[in-house]
Amino acid sequence: MRRRGRPGRAGAAAGAAAAGMAAAGRVLVYGGRGALGSQCVRYFKSRNWVTTEVGKLLGEEKVDAILCVAGGWAGGSAKAKSLYNNCDLMWKQSVWTSTISSHLATKHLKEGGLLTLTGAQAALSGTPGMIGYGMAKGAVHQLCQSLAGANSGLPSGSAAVAILPVTLDTPANRKSMPGADFSSWTSLEFIAETFYNWITGKNRPNSGSLIQVITTGGKTELVAAAHL
Amino acid sequence: MRRRGRPGRAGAAAGAAAAGMAAAGRVLVYGGRGALGSQCVRYFKSRNWVTTEVGKLLGEEKVDAILCVAGGWAGGSAKAKSLYNNCDLMWKQSVWTSTISSHLATKHLKEGGLLTLTGAQAALSGTPGMIGYGMAKGAVHQLCQSLAGANSGLPSGSAAVAILPVTLDTPANRKSMPGADFSSWTSLEFIAETFYNWITGKNRPNSGSLIQVITTGGKTELVAAAHL
Repeated sequence: MRRRGRPGRAGAAAGAAAAGMAAAGRVLVYGGRGALGSQCVRYFKSRNWVTTEVGKLLGEEKVDAILCVAGGWAGGSAKAKSLYNNCDLMWKQSVWTSTISSHLATKHLKEGGLLTLTGAQAALSGTPGMIGYGMAKGAVHQLCQSLAGANSGLPSGSAAVAILPVTLDTPANRKSMPGADFSSWTSLEFIAETFYNWITGKNRPNSGSLIQVITTGGKTELVAAAHL
Repeated sequence: MRRRGRPGRAGAAAGAAAAGMAAAGRVLVYGGRGALGSQCVRYFKSRNWVTTEVGKLLGEEKVDAILCVAGGWAGGSAKAKSLYNNCDLMWKQSVWTSTISSHLATKHLKEGGLLTLTGAQAALSGTPGMIGYGMAKGAVHQLCQSLAGANSGLPSGSAAVAILPVTLDTPANRKSMPGADFSSWTSLEFIAETFYNWITGKNRPNSGSLIQVITTGGKTELVAAAHL
């Protein structure tokens, strides 16, 4: 079992540092110890936001956003000996974390708040070489669309949006694919900034949107997928 | 935990009854004790096919088809107390059975054979009132498309096709929805006959197809979904 997403302990240190600042808010980062998660925690701290962990949510004060950036990757066809183990791992890393984040959002997200989930551009179609990964991300995409529906349980006016990256520029990916074209990889800073914009109301997509994150020649575009 | 799909024991009794008959074949029914599964077992037996169970597959002889008709249903929004239990149950009933059937197909399906999976028409979009069910079926749809890809592990010339029913006319559904319009429900016989046709080469959809099963006024149509 490789790194499982856990609620962002990294955020605990931020404490009440920014409490009371006019433009600052509170954000929960699920998976805050992973590459993207820790970037998000750094980013929001730099803007004097208070990041928090799950235990802290039990109080009355609600959060502006919940970012589920936990996840993982495993390859293998339907024939692979590792199929069942990989499916189980992918389910835990992507689907459970997304499900838990969604449930937390029904309880602790502000009205008008934002829940982000992490899908995968590849899972918009078949992924024969990564069966378990594709299924788990397919489930996350469907979940995002469910959350946009009436009576999904999310607070009034809030939105669920999934980002669908191709490859994120993380240390782990650099290590495992040293010969790849890094100019087609998406920087974590870009994602964190995008979340910040959406949370603060700038270009926030409609709830249920599946937002592909496409990077070419070092330039990143956000492209809404037409459908599941 | 309600009825979990299990490999079709009902088929064991068929034994070698039809062995050697020219047009007969062998079919594995996963979930053969459920409503749809037992109808499939009856249907194939009536055509002198040999139904089998997983243990019997360990020999050399391969099967013409694997039908994964295991499944289940649970409702509930993201806010429901039952969310985690339901997600776990749906994953076991739909995704694990589909994953296991897929892996069995890589080992025991004939070249040119057919694997059927059971999706859900509703999961082609959001399902806010049945979050766990929608995610699981969304994963099954994505799996079906993965299996159609090169190097998915399925035997040469074989196909994976998912049926996406709306409501099946089962005893359990009649009991839980006594006031419903049964003329929009699909008969199990229709599904079993459709499988038989596809297995024997009649109107078999392309591998990866998601086939919506739409019944109106007692008449059923098969409508390929355009996409995930």
